[in-house]
Amino acid sequence: MTTTAAVVGASGFTGGELLRLLSGHPEFEVTQATSRQYTRKTVGYAHPNLRHLDLRFSDPADLESVDVLFAATPHGVSMEHIDAFRDAADTVVDLSADFRLPEAALYDDWYDGHDRPELLSEATYALPELTREDLPGADLIAAGGCNATATILGLLPLVDAGIVDGDQRVVVDVKVGSSEGGAGGGAASSHPERSGVVRPYAPTSHRHEAEIETYLGTRVAFTVHAVEMVRGASATCHVFPDEPVTKGDLWGAYRETYGDEPFVRTVAGGGGVYRYPEPKAVAGSNHAEVGFELDPRNGRVVVFSAIDNMMKGSAGQAVHAANVALGFEETAGLAFTGLHPVGTP
Amino acid sequence: MTTTAAVVGASGFTGGELLRLLSGHPEFEVTQATSRQYTRKTVGYAHPNLRHLDLRFSDPADLESVDVLFAATPHGVSMEHIDAFRDAADTVVDLSADFRLPEAALYDDWYDGHDRPELLSEATYALPELTREDLPGADLIAAGGCNATATILGLLPLVDAGIVDGDQRVVVDVKVGSSEGGAGGGAASSHPERSGVVRPYAPTSHRHEAEIETYLGTRVAFTVHAVEMVRGASATCHVFPDEPVTKGDLWGAYRETYGDEPFVRTVAGGGGVYRYPEPKAVAGSNHAEVGFELDPRNGRVVVFSAIDNMMKGSAGQAVHAANVALGFEETAGLAFTGLHPVGTP
Amino acid sequence: MTTTAAVVGASGFTGGELLRLLSGHPEFEVTQATSRQYTRKTVGYAHPNLRHLDLRFSDPADLESVDVLFAATPHGVSMEHIDAFRDAADTVVDLSADFRLPEAALYDDWYDGHDRPELLSEATYALPELTREDLPGADLIAAGGCNATATILGLLPLVDAGIVDGDQRVVVDVKVGSSEGGAGGGAASSHPERSGVVRPYAPTSHRHEAEIETYLGTRVAFTVHAVEMVRGASATCHVFPDEPVTKGDLWGAYRETYGDEPFVRTVAGGGGVYRYPEPKAVAGSNHAEVGFELDPRNGRVVVFSAIDNMMKGSAGQAVHAANVALGFEETAGLAFTGLHPVGTP
Amino acid sequence: MTTTAAVVGASGFTGGELLRLLSGHPEFEVTQATSRQYTRKTVGYAHPNLRHLDLRFSDPADLESVDVLFAATPHGVSMEHIDAFRDAADTVVDLSADFRLPEAALYDDWYDGHDRPELLSEATYALPELTREDLPGADLIAAGGCNATATILGLLPLVDAGIVDGDQRVVVDVKVGSSEGGAGGGAASSHPERSGVVRPYAPTSHRHEAEIETYLGTRVAFTVHAVEMVRGASATCHVFPDEPVTKGDLWGAYRETYGDEPFVRTVAGGGGVYRYPEPKAVAGSNHAEVGFELDPRNGRVVVFSAIDNMMKGSAGQAVHAANVALGFEETAGLAFTGLHPVGTP
Repeated sequence: MTTTAAVVGASGFTGGELLRLLSGHPEFEVTQATSRQYTRKTVGYAHPNLRHLDLRFSDPADLESVDVLFAATPHGVSMEHIDAFRDAADTVVDLSADFRLPEAALYDDWYDGHDRPELLSEATYALPELTREDLPGADLIAAGGCNATATILGLLPLVDAGIVDGDQRVVVDVKVGSSEGGAGGGAASSHPERSGVVRPYAPTSHRHEAEIETYLGTRVAFTVHAVEMVRGASATCHVFPDEPVTKGDLWGAYRETYGDEPFVRTVAGGGGVYRYPEPKAVAGSNHAEVGFELDPRNGRVVVFSAIDNMMKGSAGQAVHAANVALGFEETAGLAFTGLHPVGTP
Repeated sequence: MTTTAAVVGASGFTGGELLRLLSGHPEFEVTQATSRQYTRKTVGYAHPNLRHLDLRFSDPADLESVDVLFAATPHGVSMEHIDAFRDAADTVVDLSADFRLPEAALYDDWYDGHDRPELLSEATYALPELTREDLPGADLIAAGGCNATATILGLLPLVDAGIVDGDQRVVVDVKVGSSEGGAGGGAASSHPERSGVVRPYAPTSHRHEAEIETYLGTRVAFTVHAVEMVRGASATCHVFPDEPVTKGDLWGAYRETYGDEPFVRTVAGGGGVYRYPEPKAVAGSNHAEVGFELDPRNGRVVVFSAIDNMMKGSAGQAVHAANVALGFEETAGLAFTGLHPVGTP
Repeated sequence: MTTTAAVVGASGFTGGELLRLLSGHPEFEVTQATSRQYTRKTVGYAHPNLRHLDLRFSDPADLESVDVLFAATPHGVSMEHIDAFRDAADTVVDLSADFRLPEAALYDDWYDGHDRPELLSEATYALPELTREDLPGADLIAAGGCNATATILGLLPLVDAGIVDGDQRVVVDVKVGSSEGGAGGGAASSHPERSGVVRPYAPTSHRHEAEIETYLGTRVAFTVHAVEMVRGASATCHVFPDEPVTKGDLWGAYRETYGDEPFVRTVAGGGGVYRYPEPKAVAGSNHAEVGFELDPRNGRVVVFSAIDNMMKGSAGQAVHAANVALGFEETAGLAFTGLHPVGTP
Repeated sequence: MTTTAAVVGASGFTGGELLRLLSGHPEFEVTQATSRQYTRKTVGYAHPNLRHLDLRFSDPADLESVDVLFAATPHGVSMEHIDAFRDAADTVVDLSADFRLPEAALYDDWYDGHDRPELLSEATYALPELTREDLPGADLIAAGGCNATATILGLLPLVDAGIVDGDQRVVVDVKVGSSEGGAGGGAASSHPERSGVVRPYAPTSHRHEAEIETYLGTRVAFTVHAVEMVRGASATCHVFPDEPVTKGDLWGAYRETYGDEPFVRTVAGGGGVYRYPEPKAVAGSNHAEVGFELDPRNGRVVVFSAIDNMMKGSAGQAVHAANVALGFEETAGLAFTGLHPVGTP
């Protein structure tokens, strides 16, 4: 029996990605795709890769009952409409930051507060590699943020192994593509200005720090650069362990944490062109790549992590979480493995 | 029951694309992937998107029996090894130019002649939209060339409708990505030199003219430019019909030819950002986009066509043809619809 | 003695290019740079390459007297403010289309008419290679459009030599960068949507046809594609001469027309990576490259032409024209020759 | 009176950049440009931006006497040929690493040793902002390395001000373009593989660490990524001062160090699109941009630095140093300020 799905905010980039994934998913049928801006137009109007789909945007005011509602709306929208969303659907999967953090105080510190703090404890943070056990049966799922996902996936094995603990300060330098800015975009996002940049995008105080410190338990000194990509997020983490570690220790830690994960590949050296994690290698896919190198001169561990911010960092992660929550095959609808070669993803 | 497949020349770009498609195909099992250069390495060594696959390159001298052999080798290799290929497999699908043209004289004119001219009449040219009926049961299949495919798909409805006939001279201006040059590459393909070009790549005398004129029956004045893309081929055809045509005539012609095609989308005007065919909209997918505009000042029909040269222009077309030849679902293994947004594909 | 210059519309792309050129020009001193949007900010606020300049945007309502006023405003602004411009300056150089065409009827056909048709006969079209003799002493100069400039420069030698005449229909396929859209930009210009395109931008009916047909006397079937570049315009012209021509004829024609031109390089074959005109090779410079190839199969002449649309196609051409008009060294302020290597210009 | 100059290794990227700069320099005349590979071809064969120059490559075995010899050869060549270079020229400016480090032991640690260790004390390291006083009259000048230059320029004010001292460990994350790999290039440099990467290029143990620690006196934990650019190097340095600092302290430090420097712009916040240093803003120019941000949560100082690796990081720096050494105007031949907008530099 098919599970019905609605995508709210379906004309945006992550909304389109949800439509793409769900329309090829063996368990789901998309029955609604809402867009205020494009109501009644075909989804292919906004998303040319979906021009062959026979589906039109509907008004978000006209939500119908579905099994699962995916909300791909800007931050603040979900907390405003959460009651309507939960009335319409048994399971709500939110891709915004509105239900990611467990405490209202964090929203006061990092956002503009929270309208519905009483719901925060009902939400399940969905980075399946971290919170898989909490997902079955969850009915309010908050998919993790892209830069937080990249960082957490990179560092998690070191935390699990005790190589990173809460006392060290880990320097994290993230590089992201232009799709993180969404489909709107002002002058800084125009092609002539945005092309080819290595631009300090969030030198300090990026909101995803809150997610990382909450779920990883580690302090980070966090900086985000915009680089020439549309899709992709890459985190480089500089760790100075209290005790010396070997490459063997590191391989052991990554195998221990990710040995059975269907969407995480550990890549650390070896030969060929692609020796470490790269966003290109996972573009369009729900795979993450993680890896590391050891600095012989100072004992530093350099950790690399690469994801597609629209997939593993957003829509793919949301579908993965829904798969776990609803008891589907974990990889259902997420089989695409990326392309080689590919240009600037 | 699974159909076994070998990919010969599997470390090249189209070879990797075949591995990607066949490893996700419900009917095929890849039992061999040959590479002289990378024998015994994992396929992920050459193709980072396939790092999770448990498959290693083998020596092309050690071909084993399979149901279908896909040859993704440089031009000239298939004609040299065709007996070994046919000994090993019931069906051979060749992605090179070696068996595309029906007459030895054409190989004399456009290539360095042909070693096995007696086999040319046994081969089936595989551009399924054009030769679908010839494919069932075919055992030597020659997948069409990328630039020829883009051009033929664009013009075919006009030929079918009699708007283009053999007497006109159609000007065709093709734009291609760097993957057409393959995985080798010399100075002109190095990133600093190749980036951002609008480079006359084949001002005249491109070999695909032979395919186009043979299978479309139309003379073309053909020029190919290299532009900043890795994947993609876009053909713009300038047609001056003998008799005036209307947009209605054109829509009619495209609907007539492609109304039931699973992999061809007609896009001609309308609103939004993506109003005509674009390689970006089909990158990674087996879809082609075709469309047109009518010049009010001179009656010219401008035809646009866009494909992914590695997919619809090569590996995807080969799998599509194999699906038809073997009686599988036409779209099996070819469901991926492309990404939005995507950078420089 | 220094010549004073004002740049009106100085926060736009071509305005910034004028500031860059004039601030390094041995004869000019920029005394005003107007911008409604950025009044009182430094010019480096809009143009980061000029952050070291001690110059601020002023209000366009406060024009002061200067020797030369360069107007880099959107189409329609110059015709509205032309009296104020001419009151303020002895010489007005307009970079918009407002004074390019000689007859009001052409503005009716191609634009929204013209407010000051009586002034059209006073203006001098400034593509110096074509109209050099008309420029000395000209006081209302209309710099040619980018796509028209590329096309005219490519075809001019063939017109001069009688190889192209008014009866043939020349197919012109132009590829342009995103800076043609200016600093504003909507959804189609946002980085995620615009990156990596081969997009039919003006399939037919581009306004520069009027300039080409007026000044070259040749009918063109004209199509413009947007490709992945910020700067650059490349025109490929397909010419079918009435009488056969040889490569020697073509070399002769190009040498005859451009032998003494300081800003035109003829590039036609030879070896190495850059065998024909390429926008990359002239990015940032006022040089144009032109070249050709002869199709042995059908007598077609394929003409290639490449410019930087912001330079030879706009600001550089304007400064070049001003140099000629005012009797300065032709190349003054225009010595920069472009970069090698360079990425996507 | 003109100063004659030879460029050895003139067909490479930095060699071409030297040709470009010196051919537009008011004091220099290029009398030789050597290339083994392209002997007797015009320099425009290798460098399309110089196609209008009437200069041909000569054999490096035929060095003639000049005033200044610029060596743009791969590492190891200069130390082998240094006697011939010094015989031919009064002043040798070497762009390789061969004479950058002051002690043979450092070459043992970081390179493959040094053939002529006795000459190391005769060389002057040329990062003019750091060693300007040592340059006048210097006859063996070693231009600083690109990544070292970017890093040193970013951190120098903090070292001068005592905010960074030798005991802290500064994390440095550098992003570079593909021109750093030079004109040769293997598979990893081919356009399809190199495009759009965020690739750990030197996770640890990059040789420029030796220059940074030698000339800045600060330990660095250094990682280099390749990103989608041809030209450009950007260094992000994460500093944890022992004592809290304010933005005022930082502004003071940067003004103190760079207040009078003709080629360094400090950019730190403010409005608009370009709020911090960016390689795009200096592409093609000898300018460096430096800037900083203060992390309110942990006192971290994030330092940003951007240069064109071919200019300020190589050929431009070499010409700048020669200008100082020979008593020319410091900015002679280096007036170009970069472009706006520009694509992927």
